[in-house]
Amino acid sequence: MQAFDEAAASAARARQNSLTKPPGSLGRLEDLAVFMAGWQGRERPQLDRAQALVFAGNHGVVAQGVNPFPAEVTALMVRNFQAGGAAINQICRVAGADLSVVPLDLDRPTGDFTQGAAMTAEEVEAAMRAGADAVDPRSDVLLLGEMGIGNSTVAAVLAAATHGGSAEDWVGPGTGAVGEVLANKLRAVAEGLARHRTGTARDTLAAFGGREQAAICGAVLRARELRIPVILDGFICSAAAAVLTRDDQAALAHCLIGHESAEPGHRRLVAAMGMQPVVALDMRLGEGSGAAVALMVLRAALACHDGMATFAEAGIG
Amino acid sequence: MQAFDEAAASAARARQNSLTKPPGSLGRLEDLAVFMAGWQGRERPQLDRAQALVFAGNHGVVAQGVNPFPAEVTALMVRNFQAGGAAINQICRVAGADLSVVPLDLDRPTGDFTQGAAMTAEEVEAAMRAGADAVDPRSDVLLLGEMGIGNSTVAAVLAAATHGGSAEDWVGPGTGAVGEVLANKLRAVAEGLARHRTGTARDTLAAFGGREQAAICGAVLRARELRIPVILDGFICSAAAAVLTRDDQAALAHCLIGHESAEPGHRRLVAAMGMQPVVALDMRLGEGSGAAVALMVLRAALACHDGMATFAEAGIG
Repeated sequence: MQAFDEAAASAARARQNSLTKPPGSLGRLEDLAVFMAGWQGRERPQLDRAQALVFAGNHGVVAQGVNPFPAEVTALMVRNFQAGGAAINQICRVAGADLSVVPLDLDRPTGDFTQGAAMTAEEVEAAMRAGADAVDPRSDVLLLGEMGIGNSTVAAVLAAATHGGSAEDWVGPGTGAVGEVLANKLRAVAEGLARHRTGTARDTLAAFGGREQAAICGAVLRARELRIPVILDGFICSAAAAVLTRDDQAALAHCLIGHESAEPGHRRLVAAMGMQPVVALDMRLGEGSGAAVALMVLRAALACHDGMATFAEAGIG
Repeated sequence: MQAFDEAAASAARARQNSLTKPPGSLGRLEDLAVFMAGWQGRERPQLDRAQALVFAGNHGVVAQGVNPFPAEVTALMVRNFQAGGAAINQICRVAGADLSVVPLDLDRPTGDFTQGAAMTAEEVEAAMRAGADAVDPRSDVLLLGEMGIGNSTVAAVLAAATHGGSAEDWVGPGTGAVGEVLANKLRAVAEGLARHRTGTARDTLAAFGGREQAAICGAVLRARELRIPVILDGFICSAAAAVLTRDDQAALAHCLIGHESAEPGHRRLVAAMGMQPVVALDMRLGEGSGAAVALMVLRAALACHDGMATFAEAGIG
C-alpha cells in the first residue's frame, strides 16, 4: 500500500516554519498543508483538479420502515444532482470541484440485512470496482459522498460491526426518523447485528450493504494506489470507509473527514477512527456536502502554504 | 440603529424549507443564509462584493516587554500585506475578498496604558473615523482584521474591562509570549485594570487603545448604518468590537465571529458575547485570516440558498 512521503512532509513543515507568521499560528491549515504534501509527495501540493464522486444506491432494509422517505427518492435525487439542483452541486461550484454522480443499480436494491445477506461476494466486488473505476487518476484530491434512502441505517450497522457497541450507540434520526420509524431503525440494526458474524471488510459489506458503501471503499483503495488524498463526508461515508480498517488499521491514512455531522453517531465514530473532522457546521445532509465545504478550507491552507512570503523574502527577522 | 429585516429573514427561512434536502440538514449554512437575508434585507442575499479591511497600529504598552517581537514588525508586516505576501492575501484571493490595509500612525504608538491613557478623546474619534471611512458602502459583506505588535495585551485588557474578570482570565500567549514576557503581559493588564475606570466604549478605547481597535469599532458602526453584515476575526478583533456593547447590548447583532481562535481567552470571550464562531481551526494569526476562511463557508451557504432546486422544481414529494 502506498505510504506517506515523510521527506515531502518534512520539507513542507520546514517551509511552514519559514513563512511570515508565528510558527503554528495557522493551526489546522498548517497540518492540512503537510498532510497534502506527504500524500502528493511534493513540498508544495496543488489543488488544480478536485474530483467529487457521489455514489447512490438503494437498500432492502427500507422494507423495515426505517426511513420517512420512500426509496424512489434516491433516483429523484440522482436526477436532481444531474440537473444541478442539489446542495452538492452548489458547494462544488464555489469550492472548485468537478462533480460526478454514480448511480448503482437503483432499481435493484440490496437484500434486507435483517433477513439475509445484503449482497453476494460478486455484487460486493462489482460495486467496489465501480467505485475504483470512477476515480480520475489525474485528481489532486478526491471528495466522496453518497445518497441512498435507508443508508443511515446501513451506516449504523456497519459502524457497530466495525467498532462494536449496540444499535442505540449508532442509530440516529438520519433524514428525520422519529417515533415508530426510529424504533424500526433501532430494531433493524439490532437484528442485523444478531444475524451476521463478519470478519473482513468484504464480509461486512456483503452482510449489510450497500452498493454505495462498497463503491466508497473501492474508491478509497484506488485513491491510495494513486496517492490521491481523500476527503470523506459525514456519518455514512465515514462508516463505509471505516469498514476498510477491518483489513488494515492504516487503510484510511490518506483520508480526511470533511466535517463532523450532526448525526449523533458521527462524533463517536470519528473518535473510534482516531480522526478529527475539518469543520463542524451541524450539517447532516450527506451528498458529499461536508467534504466540499472542507475542500474550501484545504484551498485556504494550500494557498497560504504556496503563496506566502518567507521571513527572509519579506526582510523580517 | 439599523435593524434586522424580519420579513426578509422569514422569506429566506421559508425558502430553505422548500429546498431539496431534509429541513435543517444544512445546519449552520441555513442559519448563515437567513442571517445574511435579514441584514441585507432580501430573501436571496448576495456576495458579489466582499471587502476585507486590516487595520494596523502600534502600542505604547510594548515598553512593558509584553511581546517577543519588536514594534517594528508591525510596519514590516504592513509592507508584507501591501506586497501580497501574508496569509490574509492568500486567503482573500481564494475566498474572493478585496483586501485593503489601513496603517494608523504606526510611527506614533498609543500611550502606555500602565502609565496613563492610551489615547485622547480626539485620537479615539480620529481612529474611529478612519475605520468608518474605510468601509466601502457597496460591500455585501465586510471582513475585519488587525495587525499590531502588542495588541493581544490590549485585547486582554479590553475584554476584562468589558466583561469583567482578571488578567489571568484573558491573557494568553498571543504571538508566542512565554516565561518573563507572559509574566510582563499579565502584570501590564492587571496594572491597566487597576489604573483606569471606564464606562462608555469611547472611555474604554481612550484608556487602553489602540488605534486599530478604535478603527474596528468605527467600521462596525458604519457597517450597521449601511446594513452591511460583518465577519469579525478572532480574539483581538472580537475584543475590540465587544467594547461597543458597553454602549448598546445589541451593537454587534449584524456581526458574525469568523473563527474560534486558539488564543485561550477567545472561547471565554465568545461565550460572554453570546456568539458562535463559524469555524474552529486552531488558528491564532489575526490579520482577518479566520474571517476570510469563514467567508468561504458563507459562500457555500449562499450558493445553496440561491442555487438549489425546490422540491416542487425537482418534482419530488
